[in-house]
Amino acid sequence: MIPEFSIINKFFKTKKSNIYKGIGDDAALIHKNKNEYWALSTDTLNINTHFLKNTSPKNLGWKCLAVNISDILAMGGIPKYALLSISMPSLNELWLEEFSKGFFACAKRYEVELIGGDTSKGSLSINVSIIGIAKKKSVFLRSKAKNKDDIWVTGQIGLAALGLAHLQKKLILPITIQKKSIQALERPSPNKNISLKISGLSKCAIDISDGLIFDLNHILNQSKLGANIYIEKLPMPKWIIQKKLYHLGLNGGDDYQLIFTSPKKNRNKLEIINNKNKFQITRIGCINNSKILRILDKKGNIIPIIQKGFKHFA
Amino acid sequence: MIPEFSIINKFFKTKKSNIYKGIGDDAALIHKNKNEYWALSTDTLNINTHFLKNTSPKNLGWKCLAVNISDILAMGGIPKYALLSISMPSLNELWLEEFSKGFFACAKRYEVELIGGDTSKGSLSINVSIIGIAKKKSVFLRSKAKNKDDIWVTGQIGLAALGLAHLQKKLILPITIQKKSIQALERPSPNKNISLKISGLSKCAIDISDGLIFDLNHILNQSKLGANIYIEKLPMPKWIIQKKLYHLGLNGGDDYQLIFTSPKKNRNKLEIINNKNKFQITRIGCINNSKILRILDKKGNIIPIIQKGFKHFA
Repeated sequence: MIPEFSIINKFFKTKKSNIYKGIGDDAALIHKNKNEYWALSTDTLNINTHFLKNTSPKNLGWKCLAVNISDILAMGGIPKYALLSISMPSLNELWLEEFSKGFFACAKRYEVELIGGDTSKGSLSINVSIIGIAKKKSVFLRSKAKNKDDIWVTGQIGLAALGLAHLQKKLILPITIQKKSIQALERPSPNKNISLKISGLSKCAIDISDGLIFDLNHILNQSKLGANIYIEKLPMPKWIIQKKLYHLGLNGGDDYQLIFTSPKKNRNKLEIINNKNKFQITRIGCINNSKILRILDKKGNIIPIIQKGFKHFA
Repeated sequence: MIPEFSIINKFFKTKKSNIYKGIGDDAALIHKNKNEYWALSTDTLNINTHFLKNTSPKNLGWKCLAVNISDILAMGGIPKYALLSISMPSLNELWLEEFSKGFFACAKRYEVELIGGDTSKGSLSINVSIIGIAKKKSVFLRSKAKNKDDIWVTGQIGLAALGLAHLQKKLILPITIQKKSIQALERPSPNKNISLKISGLSKCAIDISDGLIFDLNHILNQSKLGANIYIEKLPMPKWIIQKKLYHLGLNGGDDYQLIFTSPKKNRNKLEIINNKNKFQITRIGCINNSKILRILDKKGNIIPIIQKGFKHFA
């Protein structure tokens, strides 16, 4: 979401609701049965905004589904079904064939079933709506962070932003991380198992689609809390650290990693889960009741935040 | 759907499925409980394809939801929840405010709840995904027409196409039907009660989004049957009949009326329901096993069919 576009809440925030969560989390939750919710979300990828013109259709097919899967995982849910809407300027069979290969590869990987869709003429744009199932007792909500919770992040952050900057020729990456960073941008692979394994140890998570700071602020705003983040703890690619391009790690979008919070008492359990499963989850800071997000350097000095939703190319 | 775009089935037809109906009906059906399905559908409206540049945002807000509601009603379902995705070139608060008025007016009318959505930068495009509930015993499927069934249609057909032709200055309508036909195009109002009242009397229905012939052919193809349609029975606006612009009634899209089939024995019951509720449903022909759709004039002569999916402006 382009930051200023969050103004949409002004017009579309639902007033009264029979559902458990409406607009404002990674997915909406509606009652399924005594123990489960349906989790529902939608995401659109537009040419020149969410993907570059020369993005391979196969990667785009993968990504349009993966970003939606990420939303369901960020609720603690299991993705199940998807609806796909493709707008394209004219019929291009070869493009569709490649796109469908990527889409179904992702669907197979995450065991998601395509159950419907439509195609129409228009500027190239892909919308996916996704339906998953979340257990009531293990659902993650942005509003459930608690004072003194640890803040954890999965995988690496800034990698996708690095890939984008390289493709846009804003920087030239060494060959060693070119492939990995472009892969992170174009074929994000949210970790399904992490959501499952941390269930019970966390009540609060969000996926990093718009950048660490931007998305962490959603948690802080909805939980009415603040946080300290220690920059040297952030799991950023070495190259970002060497070149001091911290803004790519702090503001770079499209990572589809998870930020989650957990009480201190779970620290050991999480470390054990991490080591056992080779998850690469990292403790990056902690929640406090200041209502302010501070990024701190090694010496405890505050690093000024330039908040940017980096997701879109515009 | 642009006719040739139906080729998408080639790439996206699901092979194996745990769901009751996948791609190829007005909505997908997934198991809800012993007696009910969830019905799910998605539809995108793109500028210059599905709506004219100067369409009022209020009407567009109404229509993007109404066309999805129509899909659920065409399955015999009751629409419940919607997800909304808006792409627009730049933030336009006034536009969004008007759009949301139309959207929520439609949501209120049909008791649909907006549960999620996103907004992003791109060519103006609106995607709505809708979730409804359909009773298993009263679901309508395109594949369930039977030989010798009567074919019925609700409301008037060709009215929206007339409105479009007027707005495009392809013809000039008399003032008496201008408002009604533009209303039909821009604020379609699928009839929620008809679906409910004919439940039990029909097993097969489709909504007319792409034109009577185009959509009836979906029923015939999926039921592996043919049909005779009597042109003088078609409930078209008088102006279309006077000017012999039958193609607007036969191929004109965007009507969001219902075609449904029903055994002959139900004819009287349907007439009674029709009169009692002032529904304006009309018997227009009957199913046969010829596998061919024939449009016949008063004398029984075959009227050549020019099949055009008329929904899109392109």
